[in-house]
Amino acid sequence: MKKIASIVLTVATITLAAPASAQFAKPEDAIKYRKSAMFVMQQNFSRAAGMAQGKIPFDAKVAAESAAIAEFVAKLPWAAFGDGTDKGTTKADPKIWSEKAKFNEMAEKMQTEMAKFSAAAKSGSAESMKAALGGVGGACKACHDAYQKD
Amino acid sequence: MKKIASIVLTVATITLAAPASAQFAKPEDAIKYRKSAMFVMQQNFSRAAGMAQGKIPFDAKVAAESAAIAEFVAKLPWAAFGDGTDKGTTKADPKIWSEKAKFNEMAEKMQTEMAKFSAAAKSGSAESMKAALGGVGGACKACHDAYQKD
Repeated sequence: MKKIASIVLTVATITLAAPASAQFAKPEDAIKYRKSAMFVMQQNFSRAAGMAQGKIPFDAKVAAESAAIAEFVAKLPWAAFGDGTDKGTTKADPKIWSEKAKFNEMAEKMQTEMAKFSAAAKSGSAESMKAALGGVGGACKACHDAYQKD
Repeated sequence: MKKIASIVLTVATITLAAPASAQFAKPEDAIKYRKSAMFVMQQNFSRAAGMAQGKIPFDAKVAAESAAIAEFVAKLPWAAFGDGTDKGTTKADPKIWSEKAKFNEMAEKMQTEMAKFSAAAKSGSAESMKAALGGVGGACKACHDAYQKD
């Protein structure tokens, strides 16, 4: 049984490591997908962040919901940076594909920071959310500075 | 205490019923948001559906993950159909805003069917997924036929 479990685990790992581009019918779909996910994430994060900063009236429920959506959707764009999706209507720097490990690390950092922000929003404290804002903003900026073309 | 609980519940209900358009800085953002969410949902649903139909090699893990993403994202577009978002680069029929109850009912129907499809995908059975496909497809089509302009 242990051997079977190990095989199942191996198969699962291979699936995760499979070229993400295989999940999309066309490279254009992958590019549109990652842009769409980024936009949905950004809109929700901005709303919750704006509430934390007092730019939008604070509503704990909406803030927590928005942050939770941002946390979930933050996981989605990365599967759409598969091979062959570096050309087209995209600001993605070709370095993404030659520095994939570093890119993935930055993407994971952002997800970690967004999860912290979402946890703060769930607590209902605008102060805690404010304290978590810099982490998210920093992670976004670092990756865009490194891998987004002008 | 009961009274306080009742007040809290009332406030929560009011928040849910508040104009969804208030959540977006500009009507264009709302329009782009609902299109983006629909696209992310459609891409994930199509992948899982394609696997159920044998058009894409069946991978239970990817199918379940994709269907779960589609189920989550299916909840998002509706907040972006607030007042003032009927104009612009959109195929949304103005009837959406004059028949809001019917539109919302159709949107809920789709979410219910998508949740059934996702549950089937979670079970790992391509047959169960296939059985749930018609419900999702029918709900998508009914709403697009009624409320999407050519």
